[in-house]
Amino acid sequence: MQPGRVTLVGAGPGPIDFLTLAAYKALQEAEVILYDALLSAEFHKIFPKRARVLYVGKRCGQHAFSQPEINALLVQHAQEGKSVVRLKGGDPFIFGRGGEEIAALREAGIQWQVIPGVSALNGIAAQIGLPLTLRSASNEFRAIQGHQISDSPQWWQDLARYEGTIALFMGLDRLPETLQKLLAAGADPGLPIAVVESASHAQCDVFVSSLSSVLSKGYSRKGQGPAIIYLGKNIDFIDRSSLPQKFPERESDYERILTHFSRSQG
Amino acid sequence: MQPGRVTLVGAGPGPIDFLTLAAYKALQEAEVILYDALLSAEFHKIFPKRARVLYVGKRCGQHAFSQPEINALLVQHAQEGKSVVRLKGGDPFIFGRGGEEIAALREAGIQWQVIPGVSALNGIAAQIGLPLTLRSASNEFRAIQGHQISDSPQWWQDLARYEGTIALFMGLDRLPETLQKLLAAGADPGLPIAVVESASHAQCDVFVSSLSSVLSKGYSRKGQGPAIIYLGKNIDFIDRSSLPQKFPERESDYERILTHFSRSQG
Repeated sequence: MQPGRVTLVGAGPGPIDFLTLAAYKALQEAEVILYDALLSAEFHKIFPKRARVLYVGKRCGQHAFSQPEINALLVQHAQEGKSVVRLKGGDPFIFGRGGEEIAALREAGIQWQVIPGVSALNGIAAQIGLPLTLRSASNEFRAIQGHQISDSPQWWQDLARYEGTIALFMGLDRLPETLQKLLAAGADPGLPIAVVESASHAQCDVFVSSLSSVLSKGYSRKGQGPAIIYLGKNIDFIDRSSLPQKFPERESDYERILTHFSRSQG
Repeated sequence: MQPGRVTLVGAGPGPIDFLTLAAYKALQEAEVILYDALLSAEFHKIFPKRARVLYVGKRCGQHAFSQPEINALLVQHAQEGKSVVRLKGGDPFIFGRGGEEIAALREAGIQWQVIPGVSALNGIAAQIGLPLTLRSASNEFRAIQGHQISDSPQWWQDLARYEGTIALFMGLDRLPETLQKLLAAGADPGLPIAVVESASHAQCDVFVSSLSSVLSKGYSRKGQGPAIIYLGKNIDFIDRSSLPQKFPERESDYERILTHFSRSQG
């Protein structure tokens, strides 16, 4: 039996448009595909018919598989000699728990590889016209996760003083608490903020405001989809009159490309 | 005359494998393409034959076009009614000066759009097996640019205290100075560091060490190519015995996909 292998593949921030050629190729060669929530239904069209396709994601808090269960499935299929693709929204190494899966694969002596993806970090910034770096304003950025925010007062002080662009992943549930802590730690009340909902869909909702305004007026969630929140002065660069920019239009031609693309892979 | 438009397109971290489907499509529809250094020669194969292709990058310090000159070229071609693609290594909004180009387009009243790309940030991390976030170690990250590092002692203190993964773009020329300042500001001498050279090529050079060791023994540059430097405890996760992971192998099949892909676009 040929030894199996696992390829962790970043699917990009939502629409199939942001899949890379390398990711597409890995999918075509897969015998088993484990995929996440946050992927659009279009992806099913390009999964090879012979592949076994397993959904292991969560949606709306509903539990599907735990991380150790996913790790075990990856190991099991690879040990059966299969070529396995673990398809994840965004990038596997940016809040994607790719490291945990690789640790399990290494422990089991299984070959692995990572194919990066466009992260929501810059994928959504592109859609809303927000440069993460600008020489004339903030020329650096940092990314944090709302679920896992630090308890250290020093950490909050440093964050409040930070002059770069901040990208807050999965931060909508705890947004008021996060903004309150930032303000208490000395952040500028006028700090610009952009809340992007349905960030993985072709048409996202963008709300541009300031820290103090969101704190005083609140923010009403528009849906249950994934959100990303940006903070920092580069947000003033966004042209509010033309928000949101659309992801590329779907054209019949596009379908045709994918069909050709698939056919050449057999 | 139809109004022209400009699409800023991220080409990804080097090999053509990391081009997205949306980026590929934008290139096929382009009448004028302005491209950067850092792109592999393979890209020329997929530029449509009818497109006017202009090189506007810099290489080895040699000056090609200034940013204002590039802005002017984008505006000029769009004003002639052309569909223009500005192709950039990595992502246009991560140290890519995309914001400056958009500001010029907005001022001239020209339609624009951004197609994100896989940044070197995560593209190279995938290649060397470095999770930018790990729940068990550092679960956040920040990105800074070596050329434009702050003069503020507070900034250095905050950076020295930072517990996430740091990605330093274009930082090789000033590496000893940067590490000295970090150490002086209180950074852990044992802070793990990974220097990745030829980061945009299929085979990169990776050197894993610690802050104090690089400072005492120095680091010899291996080439003139682009480099990215990572700092932080997640670097200990890298499996040194299997470095570097290769980007996907080029196969004859792959050429075939691109040919089909091109043909369907006419």
